[in-house]
Amino acid sequence: MEHNLENTLSLLRRTPATLDALLRDLPETWTSRNEGGDTMSVFDVLGHMIQGELADWMPRVRMILESGETKAFEPFDRWAHLRESQGKSLSQLLDEFARLRAKNLDEVRALNLGPNLGRRGRHPALGVVNLSELLATWAAHDLTHLHQISRIMAHQYREAVGPWSKYLGVLQCNGHSAG
Amino acid sequence: MEHNLENTLSLLRRTPATLDALLRDLPETWTSRNEGGDTMSVFDVLGHMIQGELADWMPRVRMILESGETKAFEPFDRWAHLRESQGKSLSQLLDEFARLRAKNLDEVRALNLGPNLGRRGRHPALGVVNLSELLATWAAHDLTHLHQISRIMAHQYREAVGPWSKYLGVLQCNGHSAG
Repeated sequence: MEHNLENTLSLLRRTPATLDALLRDLPETWTSRNEGGDTMSVFDVLGHMIQGELADWMPRVRMILESGETKAFEPFDRWAHLRESQGKSLSQLLDEFARLRAKNLDEVRALNLGPNLGRRGRHPALGVVNLSELLATWAAHDLTHLHQISRIMAHQYREAVGPWSKYLGVLQCNGHSAG
Repeated sequence: MEHNLENTLSLLRRTPATLDALLRDLPETWTSRNEGGDTMSVFDVLGHMIQGELADWMPRVRMILESGETKAFEPFDRWAHLRESQGKSLSQLLDEFARLRAKNLDEVRALNLGPNLGRRGRHPALGVVNLSELLATWAAHDLTHLHQISRIMAHQYREAVGPWSKYLGVLQCNGHSAG
């Protein structure tokens, strides 16, 4: 499937309501526990997604439009959310994510990106990328964290499901990365 | 985390609204495509979840209460959904899933299962299981399919994300099973 801006926006628009339906007022045992060690809880993942709305996606869109390949993106601080989320409730994070996402999508609409999807930028590690790839990655990043959230939650029932554990694909998933 | 009936019900209650927020009126390219070969599309996964509401979870709960270990569960037909979903729209499947889930949770409440969580039943392949494990598996099964749905959708953008594909954990996930 080739990248299609409307398909991307239709997904980006839905993510806040999806996370809200799944997580708001859920018992904290589902959202405050992680997968062991220094892995992320659902609360942490939400904090990370908020940081993406603040410091990753739109600053990079703007940098591509303004500077093209001449200037590399700022590296994204994957741990900033640990400082920023401290003391907040999960409901506050859901509200904040929804507000920031709506604001960012308003800006995307206003920028009229369609004719500029081929514009290039420079990623500090990946090298040359383009605006189309950046926007598709924003949507796929939502999906990677929905995938992660469902896995973190399922992990909490690893023992509770007894012998069924071997039939549940999500319990065989190792996260595929250190994060 | 030990199995807790209220935690299980709070998750089971949220799944229809979660899927609705994510999928209703989403462009069909997200929901009609699969991961290649004979893998499932998002549409197929919803059909499978509906079959679970009809033929898997509640019949097994009832069988444990009525027959204990003396009678094995009927094997679950993992492909019945292909017949039953034919000709329906994704919106119809979302409506049907929500209606069946609500009805089943009403029945769970009416059965007052709390004092019976230790009751045993017999799975045709796994052997002796208990009601607590069955209910926990019902919730984890929702999560395994949310995990699968996010992976199927992300797969559609495998090319579109360009060099970012290696950073997206969901694109490294192979599904962990043939299904």
